[in-house]
Amino acid sequence: MELTDIRELHREKDVYIGKEITVGGWVRNNRDSKNFGFLVINDGTFFEPLQVVYGDGLENFQEICKINVGAAVVIRGTIVATPEAKQAFEMQAAEVIVEGPSTADYPLQKKRHSFEYLRTISHLRARTNTFQAVFRVRSLIAYAIHTFFMERGFVYVHTPLITSSDCEGAGEMFQVTTLDMNNVPKTEDGKVDYTQDFFGKPVNLTVSGQLDVETYAFAFKNVYTFGPTFRAENSNTTRHAAEFWMIEPEICFADLKDDMILAESMLKYVIRYVLENAPEEMAFFNQFVDKGLIERLQHVVNSDFGHVTYTEAIKILEKHNDEFDYKVFWGCDLQTEHERYLTEKEFKRPVFVTDYPKEIKAFYMKLNEDGKTVAAMDCLVPGIGEIIGGSQREDNLEILEKRMEELGLNKEDYQFYLDLRRYGSARHAGFGLGFERCVMYITGMGNIRDVIPFPRTVNNCDL
Amino acid sequence: MELTDIRELHREKDVYIGKEITVGGWVRNNRDSKNFGFLVINDGTFFEPLQVVYGDGLENFQEICKINVGAAVVIRGTIVATPEAKQAFEMQAAEVIVEGPSTADYPLQKKRHSFEYLRTISHLRARTNTFQAVFRVRSLIAYAIHTFFMERGFVYVHTPLITSSDCEGAGEMFQVTTLDMNNVPKTEDGKVDYTQDFFGKPVNLTVSGQLDVETYAFAFKNVYTFGPTFRAENSNTTRHAAEFWMIEPEICFADLKDDMILAESMLKYVIRYVLENAPEEMAFFNQFVDKGLIERLQHVVNSDFGHVTYTEAIKILEKHNDEFDYKVFWGCDLQTEHERYLTEKEFKRPVFVTDYPKEIKAFYMKLNEDGKTVAAMDCLVPGIGEIIGGSQREDNLEILEKRMEELGLNKEDYQFYLDLRRYGSARHAGFGLGFERCVMYITGMGNIRDVIPFPRTVNNCDL
Repeated sequence: MELTDIRELHREKDVYIGKEITVGGWVRNNRDSKNFGFLVINDGTFFEPLQVVYGDGLENFQEICKINVGAAVVIRGTIVATPEAKQAFEMQAAEVIVEGPSTADYPLQKKRHSFEYLRTISHLRARTNTFQAVFRVRSLIAYAIHTFFMERGFVYVHTPLITSSDCEGAGEMFQVTTLDMNNVPKTEDGKVDYTQDFFGKPVNLTVSGQLDVETYAFAFKNVYTFGPTFRAENSNTTRHAAEFWMIEPEICFADLKDDMILAESMLKYVIRYVLENAPEEMAFFNQFVDKGLIERLQHVVNSDFGHVTYTEAIKILEKHNDEFDYKVFWGCDLQTEHERYLTEKEFKRPVFVTDYPKEIKAFYMKLNEDGKTVAAMDCLVPGIGEIIGGSQREDNLEILEKRMEELGLNKEDYQFYLDLRRYGSARHAGFGLGFERCVMYITGMGNIRDVIPFPRTVNNCDL
Repeated sequence: MELTDIRELHREKDVYIGKEITVGGWVRNNRDSKNFGFLVINDGTFFEPLQVVYGDGLENFQEICKINVGAAVVIRGTIVATPEAKQAFEMQAAEVIVEGPSTADYPLQKKRHSFEYLRTISHLRARTNTFQAVFRVRSLIAYAIHTFFMERGFVYVHTPLITSSDCEGAGEMFQVTTLDMNNVPKTEDGKVDYTQDFFGKPVNLTVSGQLDVETYAFAFKNVYTFGPTFRAENSNTTRHAAEFWMIEPEICFADLKDDMILAESMLKYVIRYVLENAPEEMAFFNQFVDKGLIERLQHVVNSDFGHVTYTEAIKILEKHNDEFDYKVFWGCDLQTEHERYLTEKEFKRPVFVTDYPKEIKAFYMKLNEDGKTVAAMDCLVPGIGEIIGGSQREDNLEILEKRMEELGLNKEDYQFYLDLRRYGSARHAGFGLGFERCVMYITGMGNIRDVIPFPRTVNNCDL
C-alpha cells in the first residue's frame, strides 16, 4: 500500500489538492459531532498534523467516533483546500481503518504534560509536540555537523569507547568488566586478578577521544570524532549526563587562530542549517520553550565573534566583582556567571576567551612564549556561557615531556602520544563540542535529560 | 599561512599548473642525487602524493637531502606539468622548511609492512597507503549511510550505550560499574550491593539499539540508529570485535517486503557513493587487496537482488549436502558455507533468504500464518555471506506475550516494549547492518582488526 507522508502534503500542497491519497499515522485528537467528526493525525514525518474530516456516510462511522487518542490509523481520502480555516487544507475521508487501537488510559492525553512526567515515559514522550521537535532537531544537528566536516574534506574517525587510558587524568570513569562481581578473582597478594578479565587488564569508558584522534590527524591532516563519551560524575544538575555525545575535530598545520575560525564556522553552519530545515520546530521552540530564541540564534549567525585574552577578560570582570557570587582574580577558573557577563553584557555576541593560565588547563595545551599561559580557547555564547573548549596542542617533544613530569603523569602510558612529536610533529589544534549542550542551545531546552532519548544520570538508567 | 591541499592539486590540476603555492605534509620518500633530489609528500587529503623536485640552488640543500621519511615539511614551489612522467605534474621547490623532523628509526620505512606488524603501531598505521585508504573509505561509508537515510526523511536516534536491559537475551555482555572491584560492597545476604553503584542497579553495555529505537519509530515512522555496540564474546576470529558500530533502521506502516527494498536500496547507494567518491582508494584495493573487488561491487549495484524462502533454500542446499562440512536440514541455522553457496553458485548475485523457522530467530519477529516460521530476512552477498539481518516485528500484543512466555522472558522487563503494541500498534520492520562488516565488504579487507582504528578484542585494548 502506497502511503503519502504528511510532510509531502505540507511541502507540496498544490500537487495534492483535489487528489485522493492514503496516509498512515497516529491519532492526536478525535472530536465527533452528530453526523461528522475530525481526526487529527500525525505520522511523524512532519511537525504539523493533518486534519481529517469523516462523515456518517462511512460504514464504520460509529467505530471511528470511538477511536482513542494514540491509535494507529490508515486513512484514504481526498485533500481539499480550506482557505478560511487555520490550516490550508484538510482531508475528506473515504475510508478509515484502525491499524492498531489505543485505550482510554493512554498516557498521552490531549493536554499539556510536564517535562518531569514525560521523563517517566521516555518510550512514549517522542510522540508529543515538544519532544518530536527536540529529537528531529537533534537529528538534523547531527547531520549538519557531519556535512560541515565532510564538505571540508575531514575524515570521520571512530575512536574507541572502551579504553585503557585516562585521557586527561579526568578521573570519575566507569569501569568495564566481565569479572563476576559476586566473586571477584584475586591474585595471591589479594588484588583483583585482571588477567581473568576480558581484556586482561582494567579498562574504562572513554571521557574523550582527543588523544586518539590526534594520531589520525597526523595521517589525514583534518579529522573529527563524533561519538559517545562518559563521565561518572556524581552531579545531579540540569547540564550533566553520565553518557553524552561529543564532537572533537583536530587539524594539522593549524594554530589557535585556525581553530577558532573552524569553531565559529561550524557553529554558524549548524544554526543556519537548523533554521532552514526545521522552521516549524524552531517556531514552536520560540513560542513555547524559549521566547527570543530565534532572534538570539540569528544574531549569532550574523555576528563576527569577539576575541579577548583571559588576562584582558579578568581585567574587565574585576571591575564588576561586586555583581558576582565568585570573585575573579588572575588565575581563577571562569564560572558560568563570568562567562555570561562577558558574552551577554560586555561583548553582546559570542566571544572567544584565549590564553588561559596553564595551571587551570590540560597538560597537552601549547605553552605560550610567556611561559605562564597556554594557547587555549573557550567559546562563550549568550544564554549559556561556554559551549566549546579547545586549544593548540603542544607539538614540542621536550616541552610536552617536561609538562607531563611537572604534573606527575606517567610517560610510559603516553608513548603513542609522544611518538606524534617524535615523527613528523606539526602545529595542530582542535576543540570539543558537547553535542547535547549544542542541542540545548539551539532548541532552548533547559534540561539535558530532555534532549537525550534515554538519559543516563546518577541512579537513573531506564530501559 | 595559506596551504593548498594536495587533493585540490589533483582534482583541479589545470588551475594550478604554472602557479606557485605552498603545501604542508609528511615525507613518504626522499631520493637525492648529486645536485638535486625528489621528495614524495602526502598531506592526508588525497590518496596520491605530490612529487617535489629540489635542487642545489636551495640554500638548505644539504639539510633537505637528509630529511628522514615521516618528517613534516612545508614547501613552497611551482607546479609544473610533466607530460612524460607517470604523474601528470610535480612541484619545483623554491623553499623547503622542516616543520617537524623524523628519525632514521621511524617505524614506517618505505617498504611493505605486514598487517600484523602494523597492528602493533595502531597510532601510526593510518599513515600507510592501505590504512589511509581503509579509513578514508570507512569515513565515506558512514557519511553515505547518514545521507541515504536523511534524504529519505529518517530521524537519527542516539540509543543509549549503557543499558539495564539485555535486548535479545544475548548474554555475553560487558558490565559497567563504579564499585571498587578490590572491595565490592555486599548486602547482608552476601550479594553485591548495587544500591551503591552509580545507577543503583547492575547495568551493561548495549548489544543492540533495536528495542529502544522501535519506540522512536512509533513517533517518527522512519528512524535509524548508528552507534557502537558491544559483545563480550570470547571468540578470536577475523570477523568479531568486542566493540563495533551498528546501523539499525526501523520503519512503521511497513512489512518485510518494504524492509528488503530499504536494505537493497541502502547497500546499492553506499557502494555507488564509495565508487564515485573514492576511485583512487578503490583502485588500490582492487589491485593490492582483493582482485575482482570492483567488478563484484558493480555487479551488486546492477543486480536485482534474489529472493528465496528458507524452506526453498534448504531444498536447494540439501541437493549439495556432500559439498558441505555442515549438512543442512529444515530447522538448521545456515552456516557461511551455505550462505555463500546460495549467493555465489545458485543465484550469482545478492539474495534475501526469508521466513526462517521461529526457533532459530529472536522473540520479537512476526509469526507467519503457518505458525512455524517468522517474517525474517537475511541478506547474503557474494564473497561474504550474511551482511544484513532483519525482520518484520510482531505487532500483536497477545502473540508477542505468548512468545515471550514460551521463551521464559520476564515480561516485567519489557513493559515499555509491550506498550508499543498497546497504544497504536502498527506493522513495522527493521534490520541491522554491522558497520565494520560493511567496510570489510566494500574494501575487501579480510580482518576486522584492520578496519577499526583501535580494535578491541579478547586481551587486546591498546590506547
